[in-house]
Amino acid sequence: MSRNNITVGLFGFGCVGQGLFSVLENSIGFKPEIKKICVKHKEKERNLADKYFTFNKYEILDDPEINVIVELTDDFEAAFEIVKEALERGKAVVTANKKMVSEYFEEILLLQEKYKIPFLYEAACCASIPVIRNFEEYYDNDTLYSFHGIMNGTTNFILTEMRNTGKPFKTALESAQKNGYAESNPTHDIEGYDSKYKLCILLTHAFGLTVKPDKVLNFGIQKINDFDIRFANEKKGKIKLIARAHRLKSGGIAVFVMPQLIFENNELFTVDGVDNGIVTENFFADKNIFIGKGAGAIPTAAAVLSDLSALSYDYKYEYKKKMQLSNSFINNDFFVNVYVRFNERNEAGIHQFEEVYEEYYSTDQNYITGKIRFNKLIRSEWINKESVNVILINDKIY
Amino acid sequence: MSRNNITVGLFGFGCVGQGLFSVLENSIGFKPEIKKICVKHKEKERNLADKYFTFNKYEILDDPEINVIVELTDDFEAAFEIVKEALERGKAVVTANKKMVSEYFEEILLLQEKYKIPFLYEAACCASIPVIRNFEEYYDNDTLYSFHGIMNGTTNFILTEMRNTGKPFKTALESAQKNGYAESNPTHDIEGYDSKYKLCILLTHAFGLTVKPDKVLNFGIQKINDFDIRFANEKKGKIKLIARAHRLKSGGIAVFVMPQLIFENNELFTVDGVDNGIVTENFFADKNIFIGKGAGAIPTAAAVLSDLSALSYDYKYEYKKKMQLSNSFINNDFFVNVYVRFNERNEAGIHQFEEVYEEYYSTDQNYITGKIRFNKLIRSEWINKESVNVILINDKIY
Repeated sequence: MSRNNITVGLFGFGCVGQGLFSVLENSIGFKPEIKKICVKHKEKERNLADKYFTFNKYEILDDPEINVIVELTDDFEAAFEIVKEALERGKAVVTANKKMVSEYFEEILLLQEKYKIPFLYEAACCASIPVIRNFEEYYDNDTLYSFHGIMNGTTNFILTEMRNTGKPFKTALESAQKNGYAESNPTHDIEGYDSKYKLCILLTHAFGLTVKPDKVLNFGIQKINDFDIRFANEKKGKIKLIARAHRLKSGGIAVFVMPQLIFENNELFTVDGVDNGIVTENFFADKNIFIGKGAGAIPTAAAVLSDLSALSYDYKYEYKKKMQLSNSFINNDFFVNVYVRFNERNEAGIHQFEEVYEEYYSTDQNYITGKIRFNKLIRSEWINKESVNVILINDKIY
Repeated sequence: MSRNNITVGLFGFGCVGQGLFSVLENSIGFKPEIKKICVKHKEKERNLADKYFTFNKYEILDDPEINVIVELTDDFEAAFEIVKEALERGKAVVTANKKMVSEYFEEILLLQEKYKIPFLYEAACCASIPVIRNFEEYYDNDTLYSFHGIMNGTTNFILTEMRNTGKPFKTALESAQKNGYAESNPTHDIEGYDSKYKLCILLTHAFGLTVKPDKVLNFGIQKINDFDIRFANEKKGKIKLIARAHRLKSGGIAVFVMPQLIFENNELFTVDGVDNGIVTENFFADKNIFIGKGAGAIPTAAAVLSDLSALSYDYKYEYKKKMQLSNSFINNDFFVNVYVRFNERNEAGIHQFEEVYEEYYSTDQNYITGKIRFNKLIRSEWINKESVNVILINDKIY
């Protein structure tokens, strides 16, 4: 594929799709042509001439002039069908669909191997931060010990609002929705699924390990209440939703999404609002930190353009870690330090802790902080109760 | 060049050269062979078999088996001769020599164009932070408004020591030297030359502008005294040596190195010790921040290995911004906000300020803070006086 002959067929014309048009208009270099856009709803008003649009995906997939598909829809199953049909027809694909990539990762890897066609998805992880590219290219011969980060802009916006304005969760969520940062159905973001999809994608590039998202715990922020925020403020910390993968001394990798209390000396302490931040710990390069906008039409579309530009230089992911580290696996047998908040005195089983650091009981609510085996925590009968919330109190995974 | 046929000839076996050996030993993927090492001093003890070493550069340059030169010496003029002869002979080059790259940039660009041979130097800028690669690849179609950062680990270590322990400059420098972070002749680092070389390299990749280092002001940290540190502490700030390039509304680019007072809300506030940090401001991607080790044998050698790995995939810099932005130039006609400390009441010409924010006079020393035209500042008769120090008091370049 060369610089001048990229002709794009676009699927989806939502926020990021429209952002891509505005990014292309303002690009100082590369400006590939978008020939056709496939959309679902015939009746919607769109600020682009009718001739661009089609409602039949084969008008794009079967157009021999179109050699790159940009997939920006929100239906992950339909998206995968498009990807499959595109790769079969020898068309390269760029997508921002993290759910699709993570749910169908094994299939997508096989399709890439079979058809030798590039499939890029930088925009699927942390919008403007070039994290996949750096994992692929820069640490390719380094050993990563761990990576973790704030990978979802919506929840980070909500948590920042709650802390800065004292708003309860529900009001902060509404304010995120008003600002266009949260969908009308916010489950995906606030329950940590979105962070988990990104985590699963990065896991493949960082550790060569591909797992189905349902194998990974996502504990979200939807249960955080005033009491939790007060606890965080008293400790002079901030609560952030952190996705992490951490190589364990005992073998395997600890992988999960959970809110965490972080303090001033933490690299992510100042990552507020819709910003995302990733911290990597490497054998050679030591610690690296990448911070940038984790949401928004333009930053995400910029990542799509960057992938299109990379395609024009025949770039494709090599998945080098998959060759280097074939025996990685998820291991849930490790200790964490957590805060557990609960209503009734015996609701959270204190005897399940290896070590208790603090116990607090009041007429309002109660909490325990302590060291607990992760396996025990996630299988406990209380972790999923409406009245119980769990927050990591430090970075220690041991 | 392909994955398996990289044979390296190494020039220099100092800190980073030895680091490269240890990095190769521990690399989980790519392990190119180092066939020969050219060193200067015959009598030095080295922890590697004699057969590796030569004192005649042509034993490497004329060896047809060696197809990549890794240049890690400290003599920038001799280094350039090696690079020239290597490229002429069709051998690719990887270097960490920032002075050589920035001083001979125009020549190097011409040589690359003439011979079409890759020449990579990620290790020359901020050691472990993949900043050149990201400027080249990820922002290639974005418009950068500005980038700035802490680009020298030695001075950042010294400034961190001075702030945290109250040590005067001289003692902090000695402690940097004891820790192996500063050379016996530290001028290069503390007077801001090293930061300037990196700034000049990044300028080419970010703005397509190549200038000789002597066209850019480097104001170092060597004049910072107790009084300046006290001033910073009173304002609850930290002094950092910042290199910056900033696109001006009036046209052209502001480019200089100068100490700056930064506060808690600044992205670089927590970048301490030998860490480096770069902040980019982009039209599409908004603000991105990259942080990591800016010095040390292993992080720097890891960047060299990453370049070697990139070579094996036929990677070369495209210098896309040079094509896109041909009319960039350095412009010194803008305003900055500075603190100027001086001994004698009329030593720093207060009438040269557009606006004075504070004046402080004491039996000890004196300072003014205010807005001044950069052109006037750098041409003033007092800026280079031993008794006068200048520190930027905020990020405003206007």
